[in-house]
Amino acid sequence: MERTLVIELKPGKDVLVKGWVHEIREMSKMKFIILRDVSGMVQCVLKKESKGFNEELTLESVISLKGNVKSAKLTNEKLTLKNVEIEVTELEIISKAEQLPIQVNEKTTSTDLSKRLDYRWLDLRKPEHLLVFKIWTCMEEAMREYWVKHGFIEIYTPKFMKSASESGAELFEVKYFGKKAYLAQSPQFYKQMAMAAGFERIFEIAPVFRANPSATSRHDTEFTMIDMEISFIKSEEDVMKVEEEWISYFLKKVKEEYGEEIKKTFGVDIIIPKLPFPRITMADAMKLLKEKGYKSSKGADLDAEGEKILAEIIKERYHHEFVFITEYPFSVRPFYHMKNESNNSLTKSFDLVWKGVEITTGAQREHRLNTLKEQAIEKEIDPKSIQYYLDFFRYGVPPHGGCALSPTRLLMLMLNLGNVREATFLPRDMTRLNP
Amino acid sequence: MERTLVIELKPGKDVLVKGWVHEIREMSKMKFIILRDVSGMVQCVLKKESKGFNEELTLESVISLKGNVKSAKLTNEKLTLKNVEIEVTELEIISKAEQLPIQVNEKTTSTDLSKRLDYRWLDLRKPEHLLVFKIWTCMEEAMREYWVKHGFIEIYTPKFMKSASESGAELFEVKYFGKKAYLAQSPQFYKQMAMAAGFERIFEIAPVFRANPSATSRHDTEFTMIDMEISFIKSEEDVMKVEEEWISYFLKKVKEEYGEEIKKTFGVDIIIPKLPFPRITMADAMKLLKEKGYKSSKGADLDAEGEKILAEIIKERYHHEFVFITEYPFSVRPFYHMKNESNNSLTKSFDLVWKGVEITTGAQREHRLNTLKEQAIEKEIDPKSIQYYLDFFRYGVPPHGGCALSPTRLLMLMLNLGNVREATFLPRDMTRLNP
Repeated sequence: MERTLVIELKPGKDVLVKGWVHEIREMSKMKFIILRDVSGMVQCVLKKESKGFNEELTLESVISLKGNVKSAKLTNEKLTLKNVEIEVTELEIISKAEQLPIQVNEKTTSTDLSKRLDYRWLDLRKPEHLLVFKIWTCMEEAMREYWVKHGFIEIYTPKFMKSASESGAELFEVKYFGKKAYLAQSPQFYKQMAMAAGFERIFEIAPVFRANPSATSRHDTEFTMIDMEISFIKSEEDVMKVEEEWISYFLKKVKEEYGEEIKKTFGVDIIIPKLPFPRITMADAMKLLKEKGYKSSKGADLDAEGEKILAEIIKERYHHEFVFITEYPFSVRPFYHMKNESNNSLTKSFDLVWKGVEITTGAQREHRLNTLKEQAIEKEIDPKSIQYYLDFFRYGVPPHGGCALSPTRLLMLMLNLGNVREATFLPRDMTRLNP
Repeated sequence: MERTLVIELKPGKDVLVKGWVHEIREMSKMKFIILRDVSGMVQCVLKKESKGFNEELTLESVISLKGNVKSAKLTNEKLTLKNVEIEVTELEIISKAEQLPIQVNEKTTSTDLSKRLDYRWLDLRKPEHLLVFKIWTCMEEAMREYWVKHGFIEIYTPKFMKSASESGAELFEVKYFGKKAYLAQSPQFYKQMAMAAGFERIFEIAPVFRANPSATSRHDTEFTMIDMEISFIKSEEDVMKVEEEWISYFLKKVKEEYGEEIKKTFGVDIIIPKLPFPRITMADAMKLLKEKGYKSSKGADLDAEGEKILAEIIKERYHHEFVFITEYPFSVRPFYHMKNESNNSLTKSFDLVWKGVEITTGAQREHRLNTLKEQAIEKEIDPKSIQYYLDFFRYGVPPHGGCALSPTRLLMLMLNLGNVREATFLPRDMTRLNP
């Protein structure tokens, strides 16, 4: 007999189901088992005469059950159960679980995160944790659908570099055949190389590595990054237009497929953002914030608190969860951001803030070799140290720009998870390298 | 005026096109330019009265042209040109190219690979090189379509590890906050963790890192890997079934979209493989090969030469480009491959050979903790050194198996490229870390 998934169970059929023992209730003449597979949970009833009734069952063991499906009206406050019940004729234990170090059938609390991560493979068995990765799969599929429809080409850039991609700080060093190599903190230089190569529109989804000694809820030493870059733009506005269209596209798809489950599980409504997203210059944002008595801890840049207050103002004014902040001062941007034609102290760059948290940095890049070299010098970067990058601009390169954002941060905000680690399969930080 | 892509040009329209100068022919009163963008090439005619006629043009400069589209019958032995011509009214140079170190409009030869890779961003401008990555994008999209249709979940596993994933050899060491970490050679252990976590069917596409001191046409120190793993299998046969269905699915999609272009550019026909693929046990393969006088340089394993001869035999017998070789001896397989129930010296594993080259290793994994531990000891691996991995098997884990294959090798074989580096955006090997 072929296995049936819980989600496919229909009354009146003889079935074979396989999965994990989520709950057990034992009585003298009956046992109730909640069986969980990747698709859902179902109540199974064993009677004394069922084969395997006397097997010693433990929570989280993997079992196989044969039986008949009956319709049943089940109400369970804790669990979402399939509205059928299996009358078991035969139970077999496939893989017996030892005493559990963390419970799978208890509600998650954020305070136990460290222990949960030690046993991440058990922690991920909780249906609401698995759901995060089902949503990621759906979200990424929708992102890619948009890109492919719009002529984007996928690239995989190298993670080994001879020198730093941006600043030398927070760089991981690798022993490389008796020499040194470094791990890419971002594919920035290489996605620009793709523009010099005439790829015109590219995306990449890949790990980035940052020797980040801080341990906030938003930072890991290794995480997945989504990068886009497009050519022949008129200004950074063209990048923002693509990004907002793309975000609204994939949010719609996620809502269609998982909207209800997200509401039920995480208590969050996905709001499809109206286009265009509100835009505000950094100067105007600072003015608004000053009126609220805000003073940034990061000088000419916004800190997390500033982004939060600004988002509240924008929400009140425009009823919008997103806001592009534009025209960042050159002093707080990397050397390769293009400067404003009309005001040399500003750049053609932007951040995107969602629900009060920055999710993107983007910009038009400086593609004119001499200006780029001057801007590097202005930032005290020795042009020789980035010569291989500067060479990309010598043989004809179109005006271009792009942006990047992290899917774990996106999911944290979308599902109100409180921590990027809840959306990371197996997080890595300063002290965490195991499992 | 909005920019028009070459592929969208239609006679009778006034257009603005942007791209690279692929060729220039200058006469006293006329200039012919072949303009290239991401979508194709078009001939453009400048007359003395065209604005910008006197601009000094260099090959590979980025230009912008305004003009009127005329139909034209063009025959060019070297180039695939759009069957229209642009009568240019205005030319503008956007980014002027210096003297080129390698030519973009000359035919590629394999002997100049090293220099081409030094200037990879110019090398990739050749339409046949760009085409490889358009095909990759299409191929990966089709792969994902198959996975999503079949309930696979996408994961991104960590690349930092505390210890080796398989053997300690060929491992890159990273300085990790005063300690040591290693770069993952494969996501093997973590995709098995996903099975222990109840994800049931997963895929991952991500870089792997191998401190490979050899420099053959098939090996880099860093490359993209495609991994799959599925649960509740009956044997390795279930893995092979999924893999062959998946391969035939994406080959079909690639052929639909790029079949003609592939034939024209690379001279290769994509043959959609019939299901099921031929299967042969290692013992039978060795028997057949002995008859041809073959002796393996790798003992009980097949070497590259053996795979090639076997593929020829299979092609003659079954008219099939693919062959699964099954039942590899445990002596040539990693400790976590499940042994055969009937013959303990063999494993429930397989390789897949396409056009004479191995593209996959796959297997049912040993999921029974005690047996797994014994098999580790048999391979002289200290169980303590992989304790974090063995722990995945303590709390209920379903029978599972999977396989992996590299997209660059796939594309090399599909397009007859002769070298994986031709399908790698920016290859890395022992000596190559720049650009």
